[in-house]
Amino acid sequence: MTSDVRILGIDPGLRRTGWGLITARGTKLSYLACGVVTSDGDLPLALRLRELHEGLTRIVGTYAPDEVSVEETFVNKDAQATLKLGHARAVALLVPALAGLPVAEYAANLVKKTVAGSGHAEKVQIQAMVRFLLPKAEFKLADAADALAIAITHASHRGAIALDRRHAVGAGTGLGAARIAAALARQG
Amino acid sequence: MTSDVRILGIDPGLRRTGWGLITARGTKLSYLACGVVTSDGDLPLALRLRELHEGLTRIVGTYAPDEVSVEETFVNKDAQATLKLGHARAVALLVPALAGLPVAEYAANLVKKTVAGSGHAEKVQIQAMVRFLLPKAEFKLADAADALAIAITHASHRGAIALDRRHAVGAGTGLGAARIAAALARQG
Repeated sequence: MTSDVRILGIDPGLRRTGWGLITARGTKLSYLACGVVTSDGDLPLALRLRELHEGLTRIVGTYAPDEVSVEETFVNKDAQATLKLGHARAVALLVPALAGLPVAEYAANLVKKTVAGSGHAEKVQIQAMVRFLLPKAEFKLADAADALAIAITHASHRGAIALDRRHAVGAGTGLGAARIAAALARQG
Repeated sequence: MTSDVRILGIDPGLRRTGWGLITARGTKLSYLACGVVTSDGDLPLALRLRELHEGLTRIVGTYAPDEVSVEETFVNKDAQATLKLGHARAVALLVPALAGLPVAEYAANLVKKTVAGSGHAEKVQIQAMVRFLLPKAEFKLADAADALAIAITHASHRGAIALDRRHAVGAGTGLGAARIAAALARQG
């Protein structure tokens, strides 16, 4: 017997934060929902962060995920851009933590490697594999596809990582990477 | 007639976030309280941000400030350090925004210039001027003194800046920089 685990993936960004929800049952993944939370660039930073907070809080409240997965920020040479992303990412980590949910973090290249087989995969490859692994997924924006990829990554790695369960609400059994590996093998 | 305005200054940091509360009545400043909110470095980032969020939410709830003032993050060459500070700073901006309070941001060198007369003032000069302007202030940690300096900066500039009042809870009249200017002149 394996039980369903509902996983929310978040791809943080100050202008657009992507989110994607999947269910993992054993090695079977199913698409539930995805979308983007935006903030108004004309507002002061504090109010933009509040918009992201309210949007993500609504999603957590509506879909009641068991576990949450957030992409680690890519630190580039543009310190101001890194800082902006850090602000958005803090909200993405904080909202599930306030709801008592366990939060896992994954580096961008691990997400790419898990979903598309290479840490240097292009956006279009990621999106193709997300469509392949979650045939029912409907996304218009790359941010939502990225968020689903982050959720898939967690489904694949959650058995292996030391997730902080002290504050866990849900529970579930580990999902192997078997289905993903099989899919990747089929992709060649 | 001038009414009291209660100002909370915040100096964000992931390990230690300083906070300081003052009342501005016309050009008169009074010390109310100050301290430091800490996060446990052994916890995952999401839980550390939650600790800062809970600590600052408690302070906002206890002291009911009218306006909040947060230091802008100093972007240095260490991108990882910049990112950490960005996470803490997001919480410092978010908590008052969630409470419907107006939040102002000030660059570190403007805080130094306002309080100690030079954008390159040393920590010890800032602390001496904070003690001079707020004789009743009691602080052990530099972070708390910095937070009071940030509150003083807002008291001095709030009449001049375009604070977003759409979400303002309290109201008050502008405080001139007269008292601070006079104090600085005496320091000479």
